[in-house]
Amino acid sequence: MDFNAWLAQQHTEVELALSRALPEGSSADLCQAMRYAVLGGGKRLRPLLVLATAQAVGASTALAMPAACAVEMIHAYSLVHDDMPCMDNDVLRRGKPTVHVRFGQASALLAGDALQAQAFETLLPEDGSVPLTLSARWCRLLAVASGARGMAGGQAIDLSSVGLALDQTALTQMHRLKTGALLQASVMMGATCVELSDAKTQALSRYGAALGLAFQVVDDILDVTANASTLGKTAGKDAANDKPTFVSLMGLTQAQAHANALLDEAHQALAHTGLPAVERLHQLADWVTRRSH
Amino acid sequence: MDFNAWLAQQHTEVELALSRALPEGSSADLCQAMRYAVLGGGKRLRPLLVLATAQAVGASTALAMPAACAVEMIHAYSLVHDDMPCMDNDVLRRGKPTVHVRFGQASALLAGDALQAQAFETLLPEDGSVPLTLSARWCRLLAVASGARGMAGGQAIDLSSVGLALDQTALTQMHRLKTGALLQASVMMGATCVELSDAKTQALSRYGAALGLAFQVVDDILDVTANASTLGKTAGKDAANDKPTFVSLMGLTQAQAHANALLDEAHQALAHTGLPAVERLHQLADWVTRRSH
Repeated sequence: MDFNAWLAQQHTEVELALSRALPEGSSADLCQAMRYAVLGGGKRLRPLLVLATAQAVGASTALAMPAACAVEMIHAYSLVHDDMPCMDNDVLRRGKPTVHVRFGQASALLAGDALQAQAFETLLPEDGSVPLTLSARWCRLLAVASGARGMAGGQAIDLSSVGLALDQTALTQMHRLKTGALLQASVMMGATCVELSDAKTQALSRYGAALGLAFQVVDDILDVTANASTLGKTAGKDAANDKPTFVSLMGLTQAQAHANALLDEAHQALAHTGLPAVERLHQLADWVTRRSH
Repeated sequence: MDFNAWLAQQHTEVELALSRALPEGSSADLCQAMRYAVLGGGKRLRPLLVLATAQAVGASTALAMPAACAVEMIHAYSLVHDDMPCMDNDVLRRGKPTVHVRFGQASALLAGDALQAQAFETLLPEDGSVPLTLSARWCRLLAVASGARGMAGGQAIDLSSVGLALDQTALTQMHRLKTGALLQASVMMGATCVELSDAKTQALSRYGAALGLAFQVVDDILDVTANASTLGKTAGKDAANDKPTFVSLMGLTQAQAHANALLDEAHQALAHTGLPAVERLHQLADWVTRRSH
């Protein structure tokens, strides 16, 4: 199967699983806002990383799917809160009005909160399909990657860095937390589906870290070179918000070279895993680095 | 040991454990806001319920402490977000300026988000002091109680009920989710520390449900009868916000009688557990129902 066919197939399975994992029912508005925030858009990069890694280590898609859904819920909640007026005040996301524009700020706040809880609930299916010890390891990876030592910590640094002249080390550290931690955790959650040697685990972790940073460098490049209709969100907003980016720091050509170097690093880390079936992970790294939105 | 001495002792242990469980360090502002939101105030009812239940089923305080800290972090994050301008817009909490007043809205939003993640991380200590299967069961109880089928779902109903004439059934359902779910989960997380019979588990669950609802009825009574300096938060705000309460629905005398009936129900459920050492749980129910703030 070629990469695009694989991508389409995984996408379909993820969309279905996400729809099933999200609540419907009594608290009508809340559930609607949660579903609106998650369903019907997005590249699903994090779920794809979970599933591709699970496949690389020989685990089934069915086993890994709760982890794939959970990381996407965390990502979606972070976008909902990040778009709110007190944060980035953004009105467009994935080509649609943002959640607070559509449902109001209070519902957006609650929907984000409920999505975070739903992510952990999703890691703990009541039907016994996931061993409790695996659920617990997933929960730990996801909690650390989401909290003060991960995504939320990175966003706090981002908040406090507006207008500051961060150097490349500080900018890299911010992005390793803000977006890198969850991308890396996606890889590690897939890897945790089986028992792996420390060497294999560490090589996959290096792959996740390099890919996570490459993703952000490319994001900064696209913020300058793409337009809103391609991106599905407001373009040029980092510059407008006076936020430091890899492009503002290094210039466009150097930023592109940096992204390519990180791609090489990801590929090399994969080679060091010694795993036979890393083709999809290899292709996902290419996809992240060469995307146009 | 009398109840007040027990209370003081547990309080001291909980404060110390919370302080240790909360991050300090690099993301300075975020960690400060998280610590400000959790430390130095609050009745600690939820941790006390976890610990008293653990003691009642014969588990150690040390084993149950991560669960005690985690429920309090969830409670604290919900207050931070609930106080924000787009929700209740409250400026005073536990006698101090609310988190968004002190740190700004964006930091309050992030601190709440990070506290929720921290709660789950706290349930999964890396030192192996809690069996992974117990951590997983705690995570499931906490996630369900916090999310769309619990606290966040109740808050969504609360939001949409301003100005509406809810009947007692609808009001009860709202509060069972909004505050009851987490109080009941506190009891169940303590109970989960050991293997219990279904009958004992169900009796403890009924105790938690009755106590949870009693707590809210008393809250509604205090909102009318107490003043801000006693409450440590703005008094009379439910009436001012045109929110339905047990007092607005039943009148003060009937609401008080309802609280007493729920206290009896809690005591009876405890008797049905057949557990020998339920004295602290009995006293906690009294404490909740007879408190002045």
